[in-house]
Amino acid sequence: MTLEVGVLGYRFMGNAHANAMARLPMFFPDAPAIERSVLVGRDETALSEAADRFGFSSTATDWADVVDEVDVFYNLGPNHVHAEPSIAALEAGTPVFCEKPLAPTLERAESMADAAREAGEDVPAGCAFNYRFVPAIQYAKELLEAGELGEIRHVRGRYLQDWLVDPDAPWSWRNDEELAGSGALGDLGSHTVDLLRFLVGSDDLAGEIERVSGQLQTFVDERPVPGEEEETRPVTVDDAYTGQLEFASGATGVLEGTRVAAGHKNDHTVEIHGSEGSLRFSLERLNELEILRDDENRGYETVLITDEDDPYVDHWWPPGHVLGWEHTFVHENYEFLRAVAEGNRFEPSFEDGLAAQRVLDAVERSDERGEWITLE
Amino acid sequence: MTLEVGVLGYRFMGNAHANAMARLPMFFPDAPAIERSVLVGRDETALSEAADRFGFSSTATDWADVVDEVDVFYNLGPNHVHAEPSIAALEAGTPVFCEKPLAPTLERAESMADAAREAGEDVPAGCAFNYRFVPAIQYAKELLEAGELGEIRHVRGRYLQDWLVDPDAPWSWRNDEELAGSGALGDLGSHTVDLLRFLVGSDDLAGEIERVSGQLQTFVDERPVPGEEEETRPVTVDDAYTGQLEFASGATGVLEGTRVAAGHKNDHTVEIHGSEGSLRFSLERLNELEILRDDENRGYETVLITDEDDPYVDHWWPPGHVLGWEHTFVHENYEFLRAVAEGNRFEPSFEDGLAAQRVLDAVERSDERGEWITLE
Amino acid sequence: MTLEVGVLGYRFMGNAHANAMARLPMFFPDAPAIERSVLVGRDETALSEAADRFGFSSTATDWADVVDEVDVFYNLGPNHVHAEPSIAALEAGTPVFCEKPLAPTLERAESMADAAREAGEDVPAGCAFNYRFVPAIQYAKELLEAGELGEIRHVRGRYLQDWLVDPDAPWSWRNDEELAGSGALGDLGSHTVDLLRFLVGSDDLAGEIERVSGQLQTFVDERPVPGEEEETRPVTVDDAYTGQLEFASGATGVLEGTRVAAGHKNDHTVEIHGSEGSLRFSLERLNELEILRDDENRGYETVLITDEDDPYVDHWWPPGHVLGWEHTFVHENYEFLRAVAEGNRFEPSFEDGLAAQRVLDAVERSDERGEWITLE
Amino acid sequence: MTLEVGVLGYRFMGNAHANAMARLPMFFPDAPAIERSVLVGRDETALSEAADRFGFSSTATDWADVVDEVDVFYNLGPNHVHAEPSIAALEAGTPVFCEKPLAPTLERAESMADAAREAGEDVPAGCAFNYRFVPAIQYAKELLEAGELGEIRHVRGRYLQDWLVDPDAPWSWRNDEELAGSGALGDLGSHTVDLLRFLVGSDDLAGEIERVSGQLQTFVDERPVPGEEEETRPVTVDDAYTGQLEFASGATGVLEGTRVAAGHKNDHTVEIHGSEGSLRFSLERLNELEILRDDENRGYETVLITDEDDPYVDHWWPPGHVLGWEHTFVHENYEFLRAVAEGNRFEPSFEDGLAAQRVLDAVERSDERGEWITLE
Repeated sequence: MTLEVGVLGYRFMGNAHANAMARLPMFFPDAPAIERSVLVGRDETALSEAADRFGFSSTATDWADVVDEVDVFYNLGPNHVHAEPSIAALEAGTPVFCEKPLAPTLERAESMADAAREAGEDVPAGCAFNYRFVPAIQYAKELLEAGELGEIRHVRGRYLQDWLVDPDAPWSWRNDEELAGSGALGDLGSHTVDLLRFLVGSDDLAGEIERVSGQLQTFVDERPVPGEEEETRPVTVDDAYTGQLEFASGATGVLEGTRVAAGHKNDHTVEIHGSEGSLRFSLERLNELEILRDDENRGYETVLITDEDDPYVDHWWPPGHVLGWEHTFVHENYEFLRAVAEGNRFEPSFEDGLAAQRVLDAVERSDERGEWITLE
Repeated sequence: MTLEVGVLGYRFMGNAHANAMARLPMFFPDAPAIERSVLVGRDETALSEAADRFGFSSTATDWADVVDEVDVFYNLGPNHVHAEPSIAALEAGTPVFCEKPLAPTLERAESMADAAREAGEDVPAGCAFNYRFVPAIQYAKELLEAGELGEIRHVRGRYLQDWLVDPDAPWSWRNDEELAGSGALGDLGSHTVDLLRFLVGSDDLAGEIERVSGQLQTFVDERPVPGEEEETRPVTVDDAYTGQLEFASGATGVLEGTRVAAGHKNDHTVEIHGSEGSLRFSLERLNELEILRDDENRGYETVLITDEDDPYVDHWWPPGHVLGWEHTFVHENYEFLRAVAEGNRFEPSFEDGLAAQRVLDAVERSDERGEWITLE
Repeated sequence: MTLEVGVLGYRFMGNAHANAMARLPMFFPDAPAIERSVLVGRDETALSEAADRFGFSSTATDWADVVDEVDVFYNLGPNHVHAEPSIAALEAGTPVFCEKPLAPTLERAESMADAAREAGEDVPAGCAFNYRFVPAIQYAKELLEAGELGEIRHVRGRYLQDWLVDPDAPWSWRNDEELAGSGALGDLGSHTVDLLRFLVGSDDLAGEIERVSGQLQTFVDERPVPGEEEETRPVTVDDAYTGQLEFASGATGVLEGTRVAAGHKNDHTVEIHGSEGSLRFSLERLNELEILRDDENRGYETVLITDEDDPYVDHWWPPGHVLGWEHTFVHENYEFLRAVAEGNRFEPSFEDGLAAQRVLDAVERSDERGEWITLE
Repeated sequence: MTLEVGVLGYRFMGNAHANAMARLPMFFPDAPAIERSVLVGRDETALSEAADRFGFSSTATDWADVVDEVDVFYNLGPNHVHAEPSIAALEAGTPVFCEKPLAPTLERAESMADAAREAGEDVPAGCAFNYRFVPAIQYAKELLEAGELGEIRHVRGRYLQDWLVDPDAPWSWRNDEELAGSGALGDLGSHTVDLLRFLVGSDDLAGEIERVSGQLQTFVDERPVPGEEEETRPVTVDDAYTGQLEFASGATGVLEGTRVAAGHKNDHTVEIHGSEGSLRFSLERLNELEILRDDENRGYETVLITDEDDPYVDHWWPPGHVLGWEHTFVHENYEFLRAVAEGNRFEPSFEDGLAAQRVLDAVERSDERGEWITLE
């Protein structure tokens, strides 16, 4: 059986997922057969050009016509378009893969998670936190789950970008609260929170995040509208946020996300200290993991996670032939599509998307109220 | 005229300052002439041995006999001994150089700063934040003051150590609230806060820290008493703290200090992002500064701050012949003793020590009250 | 017009090129249309499985049936199979893309270059030195050609692997002189020499390599035959080589290649010092280039070569979304196929393959004769 | 008994050794008592100023008056002044500590080694290769001697400086063959060869260097005389050299030394690959050692060699409080003076100085003759 896939969104994320789908047969021959069936968007010309390039057999301008016609629905549109089509698809019993953050508001994220719950376990609803699928992160997870770092003491997650350092960088939907929900907080923070939850969130490790403090900051209040001379629009989201965490286990943490860190392009860093060791990872060197195991190491080992028995690596190239950012999409598509074909639960799920959003929402409330916020 | 120096404390800090004094004539020949006159402590045997080794001409067991007899008084004892002798010295008109943190409580730090204020500007009262005197930090300060990084957006300070990772690491006065005031917060955090204030605290840059949130955590509640079998004592201070900052300018920041970060010996890191560039510094590579200037750089430059025209370097060795941790003490002693000889104000002063303490006290209150704390 | 492509070899290199071809339409839409037409090999079962997976429409077991039937011929077999089919293809007027090193012996490489010369400029004969097509290397080339590093003084090229550190690592054709020509020298050294020639070999920079000294070493004399218990076969090639170079300009250099450098998986490093700056590159961090320009920098900048206007990057992802090893194959296939479609010369050509081989042959002769060897 | 020390030379090396002597009592209280007795030089004013600053009780302008009057003689003058005074001292039975390289020519180095041999084992004749006394190097030596890296396969030593990159950098005695013997080769290469011999030269490891190939290059033929307008003097030594090595065990190596490597101040790097692990060290990060042990590590550990039980560290500061370049002089003075006091052999000896010189001489002959040179 070939799964017919419908995809909403044909820009950056559309491209990343279409590429991932296209690469499965050569590198993951046991992945379910799929057809890139229908690409959904509003601008017909651009859509048609994209469908051609991404290898889709048809296009549609109304997602409502698609969500119950396909075997799988990918929601890769801007944040404010996540909820309605995803819920409709789930109500039609169609598995959904939705980009992160799950929704611009906690309320809508909750509706989406509700819809997923009602659709049932055999209708996977995945939230596309692709960084879980970096081989080095999977390897780190294995070390952590095996107890190699002992009890978790501290985590540190930061996601630094610089594309808004320049006050004249153009306005986009990502600067608008209505469309995006929040700025660095949702866009970057959702990745960081999910990664930390994935790595240390199990009950045997740090458990869930229980208490949060945070702040948001906007440094540039308005930005020029692209193509429209001398017009500006207000920036209604944060350029940057910081946060502090306490986990159920008592482990503590700090968070940062910013679009104004000069010199950092896509620097997503996670660092973990346990009672028996430490780990460091940076997305800009995604093939590497820095590992310190107290009983064996005096300093961090810089390990290239590209050996044949490292996660997913046997599908690719020999040791030392490094992978790129896009490979994370191949891995998550492989896992998600297998879950669809087998009617299994997939993680990160809408629940995980919601859990991340709860933390970020608490960061925002902490900033507003000047209080530490305890999560339920 | 030769300045007679009295020093209270003959362990780690006593050694570091005695060494610094001993090295001035060869490398800083324009430093004031001094005599290592009297070393103060309680254990006469150890004291006498130390006086011999450190080159002191006499010893005393009561600081009260010393503070008004010498030209300069160094207070290098544990935190709980900082206030009384320092105040007595200042009341006697004797300049004081006191180790950090200024005092175990904010109240006592305020008394010390009061005493310094009353003693007047020509009686220097210095707080020995030696990391201001790393050449790379002085160089960073020059860049920042010259506006090379533009407006400050974010700061990040963390001080990671690992000597308490092991639950069986022995108890010491540093684990006791009465004697130390706090744990990582005061010991490590005071350095970090001072360094950030030094680098970006001027009104042209980020200004003072205005708002703070924080948390403290103790992971190991009791520790074995050294030499006394099977006895333990309670740990009444924090093993680690985290904090968030907002500066007067709106710049934001995060802080961390911990004694349980496996693999980090003395890793004091400061990172700064401005609208036109970024900086990174780590104490474990103290000869290096990482610099990014937006208009010249695409990535950080790793610069060895050992050129002849770099701060203090002309006193030492040719380019690339790296300095060590102890050299910071030579620099601060040089500056402090010059201030004493000339009756000038010295910075970091007791006011700076107090300012750092106010921030740390706010971190502690934030942890207790579950609120963001606004500093007056 | 669609170019029909025939490919000899279906293992590691077959996979890398098939993947590259498959990715062109989505990312390089202006690349010539191609059909993965026929895959050539000897083991019919394996071949057929590979053809399926790599997307070839047919298979053949005799290259002689293929070379004059297709529009382009890729020779991706072991070194000893490079000469005959490539020459036959060129004699038939079929453009050839051949993996490196060009041939196991200098003599055969010369025949291949002769055949390419006779086929004429409009029949491209490319030697697949893929590392020329790393964006960071292309960027380095631009800097060098623009004179940003001044006169070249030194180069340093080393290629470190560790897969033969273990004396029990199995024997393969790569350990056999007959089949491979040489060991680390040809396999790794050909990449290094080509990269150095590409970067500094133009007459305005260092010019050609004029004088060479070298040594070869085999540390493990025999290795176990895979699957055949207790049988071993002799290792008749080098495990490692070193070399020294002098260029026409007087610039000097050192070379190293080894399969027994514990801890290095695929560490191909090139470093260049000029009168006005320096560069460093390592394949294990292939998105990065370290750049020092004397008039602007005091230390190396670590630059992520992933900006939109960096070579090839606009075809892929936003800044900081790093590429992998395989992307170099997409770039070289794009360039090669365009040259084929337009009947243009392609570089690296068989001439370049031959030039690299001449240097390596001189390294080998230097080792044998105990002399520096001057190249003609 | 207090050893009276006479020192020839009062510039860079004079300062480094005087400082080391001054620091012994505080940090190495078991070092022999010494008096900085007489400082020897030609320029009486400068000499007298230096004697004051370095703490010498007297001065002399003729070394001949000194060598038999003191208990120890330090020869810290330029290379061409090494032989005669050192030999005279040894003939007078006075222990000698001589800076490296031992002499400007192999012949003179041989005379010096002869004199040392004739003086007998209880008259230590040390060659001041201070880098042997970096704690990280001593630690590396321990690992190697314990067999932790297995059989040595490759070594790589390079010493990169940039102070002659600028063609207008002034002429000095270091550019003159008569005064210096050679350029980068002797000045930098002697350090590198000694360090490699120290680390892997024992018979259980790689053994002695047996075969050498090399080249020397001068990029700037004349340089301006400081202070004398528009006058230049010829550069008669090398700006840079390269070499290849084969050791008795069959291990191979490459060498480089240069004064024209833009961006490198004092970058002395040693890397070693064995059958069971690898090591890396760089002088610009002299507190760190990168270690890979095949059976424990997948990647290099970056270890701070500053723990209490690391070589020499217990004499200094707590873990992570890094040492500087000058500390190596304290360690070597401690060891040398102990050898003097106890009438013991000291290493590195004049024999070691001679052995390094033989290798460098062979590098030079290889360059002249165009041959590999076998050492006797």
